[in-house]
Amino acid sequence: MPFAPFDWIDDEARRRADAGLVRTLRPRPAETELLDLASNDYLGLTRHPEVTAAAARAACRWGAGATGSRLVTGSTTLHAELERELAEFCGFEAALVLSSGYAANLAALTALSGRGSLIVSDAGNHASIVDGCRLSRAETAVVPHTDPEAVRKTLRAHDGRALAVTDSVFSVDGDAAPLAALAEVCRAEGAALLVDDAHGLGVLGEGGRGALAAAGLAGGEGVVGTLTLSKALGSQGGAVLGPARVIDHLVNTARTFIFDTGLAPAAAGAALGSLRLLRREPERAGRARAVATALYEQLTAAGLVAVRPDAAVVSVRAPSADSAVRWAADCRTAGMAVGCFRPPSVPDGISRLRLTARADLTDAQIATAVAIVRRTAPDA
Amino acid sequence: MPFAPFDWIDDEARRRADAGLVRTLRPRPAETELLDLASNDYLGLTRHPEVTAAAARAACRWGAGATGSRLVTGSTTLHAELERELAEFCGFEAALVLSSGYAANLAALTALSGRGSLIVSDAGNHASIVDGCRLSRAETAVVPHTDPEAVRKTLRAHDGRALAVTDSVFSVDGDAAPLAALAEVCRAEGAALLVDDAHGLGVLGEGGRGALAAAGLAGGEGVVGTLTLSKALGSQGGAVLGPARVIDHLVNTARTFIFDTGLAPAAAGAALGSLRLLRREPERAGRARAVATALYEQLTAAGLVAVRPDAAVVSVRAPSADSAVRWAADCRTAGMAVGCFRPPSVPDGISRLRLTARADLTDAQIATAVAIVRRTAPDA
Ligand SMILES: Cc1ncc(COP(=O)(O)O)c(C=O)c1O
Ligand SMILES: Cc1ncc(COP(=O)(O)O)c(C=O)c1O
Repeated sequence: MPFAPFDWIDDEARRRADAGLVRTLRPRPAETELLDLASNDYLGLTRHPEVTAAAARAACRWGAGATGSRLVTGSTTLHAELERELAEFCGFEAALVLSSGYAANLAALTALSGRGSLIVSDAGNHASIVDGCRLSRAETAVVPHTDPEAVRKTLRAHDGRALAVTDSVFSVDGDAAPLAALAEVCRAEGAALLVDDAHGLGVLGEGGRGALAAAGLAGGEGVVGTLTLSKALGSQGGAVLGPARVIDHLVNTARTFIFDTGLAPAAAGAALGSLRLLRREPERAGRARAVATALYEQLTAAGLVAVRPDAAVVSVRAPSADSAVRWAADCRTAGMAVGCFRPPSVPDGISRLRLTARADLTDAQIATAVAIVRRTAPDA
Repeated sequence: MPFAPFDWIDDEARRRADAGLVRTLRPRPAETELLDLASNDYLGLTRHPEVTAAAARAACRWGAGATGSRLVTGSTTLHAELERELAEFCGFEAALVLSSGYAANLAALTALSGRGSLIVSDAGNHASIVDGCRLSRAETAVVPHTDPEAVRKTLRAHDGRALAVTDSVFSVDGDAAPLAALAEVCRAEGAALLVDDAHGLGVLGEGGRGALAAAGLAGGEGVVGTLTLSKALGSQGGAVLGPARVIDHLVNTARTFIFDTGLAPAAAGAALGSLRLLRREPERAGRARAVATALYEQLTAAGLVAVRPDAAVVSVRAPSADSAVRWAADCRTAGMAVGCFRPPSVPDGISRLRLTARADLTDAQIATAVAIVRRTAPDA
């Protein structure tokens, strides 16, 4: 037998090709004429001169890397400053910065649950939450999308430690979780609540303080938040927010924190730069929401089927995976980048275009975007 | 009953305190007089002006963040360039850059195994490999440390797809895996071999091309490597190296690749800067190894129990967790930062100091380091 331990990969590749589900990387240049409605740069900060200067300054002052895990050499006073300001901005006692939002979800889920405990997870939750549940070795109950009563029933049927987890704003459809109802259910059942505010930070709440602040839940006894620094803050990294004892617990037990190199100073510096800019210009949050609403209203008026956006993500239904891919490609040809979500990246199997609002889109750009989506729409 | 879903955390904190195993973050300032033998900056590049300038330039040119996942907006031609040069340097057909070495291991392990397949994992492997095994849902067999015969027996007893995984250089003790023997076993048994070269890249092999190049295994049919950009390259991020079809497979299936924001341009730029500098100054790799050997020899001559270093990590045994902590603290008081590994971060329960060689340490600094370790050593 010839030595070919990866031949099975070719079979899978063929199956993907037959199903029209091949993904390929398409590196972009530094400058492009494309109108961007695909990135998660909700506040338009990733190229803001103040933010890129903060990144550059941090790299020059602190070095290009953190040089070690946070508990060895990888914690700088820059990390500490970012943690302090993130916690204060979002209304929590403490914060812990990790190298990605993905790592933050893995850290929170594994450190706050474990064998014998229960995690109740929304069916629409992000892949990093799903992976965190798997890694935790807790019993995981997946409940129907945005259904607090299902969470209540599941929690009630369980004896012992439990945690409910949800995206604040779901990444695919842009709809919001019923946070107030979930918090009430958790409180009644004695369970902790973990909310991934990746798409809420910078967009929801007063001045962009996030979904938990907006719901009056920030800083609550049993409430923990996770964030990413890579969307509204235009950088890279993630964070966990919560009571100080929860953060201490993560420092001592969360494997994706303990055994991972600290976030690069440039990324920490950029996130801090964005945060300070947002404090000075809190109207950016409202503008991102207004742009999303305008996109939704104009798309719907044009006869397209979209989900009313609760934050900055606007999802437009496509008839099939194939047509979604073609639609996105036609948008690109027409001068606009949009996201295209299809199986297996969509929990419900429904393909869609994903448009993201940015605070710095002009009304003329919104009109152009809508015109392009409309003009290139497949016949339903 | 009062609502206190996190009270169990206090019990665990008390237990940790009683066992003397509390970890606390100690943020460092930008400038310090401390002699650094704790970071993983093996080549002394993280603060090299060329590398920090590359980070700063990338942030200004490309923005502070990648703005989306690699398959949406997060791939720039900078990422593509870094992938091309990493693959070429290490001797592989293709490379894929992720946001951390941790994510790279999770990606490779989950995408290349799965339910029904077998992973054979060295007992000393890094936490990110352990977590990758858990996430993969493959059957995982943990074999004794650096024992190719145990790997052979375990593979032979299994029917179907299998993968052996090992650190090239173990992060705690700095000892090397028997890569040539492992590759032969894998070839004989039809299994793939995954090698995490986090501590080999930049240090081992001709000009720092890594452990797989050094063993003549780079680019092999059934061989995949993972890297981190956060140690010898002084930046942040990770990569998977392998045959093009394996990399394509990861692009299509690896969740920690698909659902994670792309690596920040500053980190990609810094890693590329380091890589180019290393190509121009290949002697840095040999110097890092020579420094490690000098540390080991002088420590051993002073009567301390150390592990002969195969790369840049020098591990010194401590009599207990308590004394290791005190030893490291005494080193710090004496002006030197060293790592201190103790349970639960050590697979074998043995506490040690962990000293790391850097290519830019002078002979005088080596002598000082040895003198401090010796002077502060606990009575055995
Ligand atoms: C809801 C949600 N959580 C977590 C993440 C992961 O964050 P990061 O990309 O910073 O790893 C993402 C997207 O990437 C997300 O959409
Ligand atoms: C052997 C090994 N693999 C992987 C990693 C993770 O790499 P990163 O810190 O870039 O996530 C580390 C250390 O952090 C390591 O020591």
